[in-house]
Amino acid sequence: MTQNHALPGGVFAATLTPLDGDLGIDHAALAAHCRWLLANGCDGIVLLGTTGEANAFSVAERMAALDALVEAGLPAPRLLVGTGCCAVPDAVALTRHAVAHGTGGVLMLPPFYYKDVTDDGLAAFFDRVIEQVGAAALRIYLYHIPQLSGVPFRRALIERLLARYPGTVAGMKDSSGDWDSMRALASALPGFRVFAGTERFLLDILAAGGVGCISATANVTCRLAAEVYAQRHTAGARALQDRLNAVRQAIEAFPLTAALKHLMAARTQRPGWLRLRPPLTPLAAAQAAALDEALQRLGFV
Amino acid sequence: MTQNHALPGGVFAATLTPLDGDLGIDHAALAAHCRWLLANGCDGIVLLGTTGEANAFSVAERMAALDALVEAGLPAPRLLVGTGCCAVPDAVALTRHAVAHGTGGVLMLPPFYYKDVTDDGLAAFFDRVIEQVGAAALRIYLYHIPQLSGVPFRRALIERLLARYPGTVAGMKDSSGDWDSMRALASALPGFRVFAGTERFLLDILAAGGVGCISATANVTCRLAAEVYAQRHTAGARALQDRLNAVRQAIEAFPLTAALKHLMAARTQRPGWLRLRPPLTPLAAAQAAALDEALQRLGFV
Repeated sequence: MTQNHALPGGVFAATLTPLDGDLGIDHAALAAHCRWLLANGCDGIVLLGTTGEANAFSVAERMAALDALVEAGLPAPRLLVGTGCCAVPDAVALTRHAVAHGTGGVLMLPPFYYKDVTDDGLAAFFDRVIEQVGAAALRIYLYHIPQLSGVPFRRALIERLLARYPGTVAGMKDSSGDWDSMRALASALPGFRVFAGTERFLLDILAAGGVGCISATANVTCRLAAEVYAQRHTAGARALQDRLNAVRQAIEAFPLTAALKHLMAARTQRPGWLRLRPPLTPLAAAQAAALDEALQRLGFV
Repeated sequence: MTQNHALPGGVFAATLTPLDGDLGIDHAALAAHCRWLLANGCDGIVLLGTTGEANAFSVAERMAALDALVEAGLPAPRLLVGTGCCAVPDAVALTRHAVAHGTGGVLMLPPFYYKDVTDDGLAAFFDRVIEQVGAAALRIYLYHIPQLSGVPFRRALIERLLARYPGTVAGMKDSSGDWDSMRALASALPGFRVFAGTERFLLDILAAGGVGCISATANVTCRLAAEVYAQRHTAGARALQDRLNAVRQAIEAFPLTAALKHLMAARTQRPGWLRLRPPLTPLAAAQAAALDEALQRLGFV
């Protein structure tokens, strides 16, 4: 199966969502950050994923964020927009909106409230969304993050969706951390584009037939990750990957979104970056100091 | 702490949500069912809880369902409305709407996407909702169902919210199935009204200081549960409770919402009751037959 995808492969940051004083989305700061990401090694951006606190915002807030990014001139084909929700009508509204903007695709969580649901039920959910969106341009990337969703995309379900909607079901972000299943998926299903959910597996997933990584920590590691990607066919790539992994490991010892917002506040000197929507909370002062020290020890600041 | 609560104690059904052919909420069937529940032993009704497939509906659909019930003449003070969402603005909109209708209270899930969140973060979530709703009439019942939400209400958080918002934080539905913690909570916190999340513990929770039960299966067991409640001070109560528990146990061997919709379709002879929103699915034919047989064996049909 050969397909042309508007969405590139490579290094994607799952962008943080900067907030204003009322904890609304700071559209200008978001556009500035996304511009910075694309100028600093990112091939694409996930808007409103887990790191972007997607589920802390209403459907209207999520649409307004995408509107503002496109309005600010960010290239829609390089955006992969989180649109998965528990309710079909919410997922449909967000997905239609993302398609109408010409984004490179949507990243869809399964409906994540009920647990132990059947593959029939999950397939029926995607059937309804795809039918109701009704757009040939739709490209869905499945968002596999069972440790938060509680609802895994099992192999049989993926194959079933892929068979039913070839071209539309375009790939997956695998954030399970389970390298064996990620590798198997990247090599086994032709035309199914697998992004590792961490830059830690960047070289490995590419070697296994995957197309890149989508990462929370790429909000700050993007230049280094892009270097790994650029050097992927060279002998020096593994050493770069090792350095990237050390940085990643230092950051992921802390609550991820809070840690990344702390680093953004430090880099930009804008303390507004420290804001999070509840239930997420900023790093405690001791955590922030420990993170800074760990990154300084690695010479990464 | 002595308080007057509009919301009664006793037996509550977490009502099923009947659907029309487009899988929209069938308002007329919902009103008819809620009327039947109140006429057949229910002291109150939870609208749009887990059994009511709350999270499968948009905010607008959820509001329309309550509007229709009140319009149809159902007594708002006997309704406890599910309004907990992952996003503060959604929880605020639904809660404001429920308060404006004069409902007996709201049943709030914690924000349930992120796991391992701190009590500070959860407290901040409820702070924002309570402040933004800004209504003296607000009565919040915390919805503790960690097996689905993945986010428990720990004792320290409950006490913190209760101390900060006495009167407003009114109680809990404990669907954890953990009798020891339920009992401790019902007896330890004066003025905090604990409903067991199953009629199985009805007599026990009342003896421990709780106020009743809120149950999925009460959609079909309400008459029997009401008998237990009415006889609670008599010697015959325990035998009734045992019978109630046997019926409950037979039903909960199956996926609960699907099993209950199957029983509703049979009782009302309206096959429309079989519809569920994805990702939930109807019982398989063999399951339905096994459920019917189990209930016939108990003489419960």
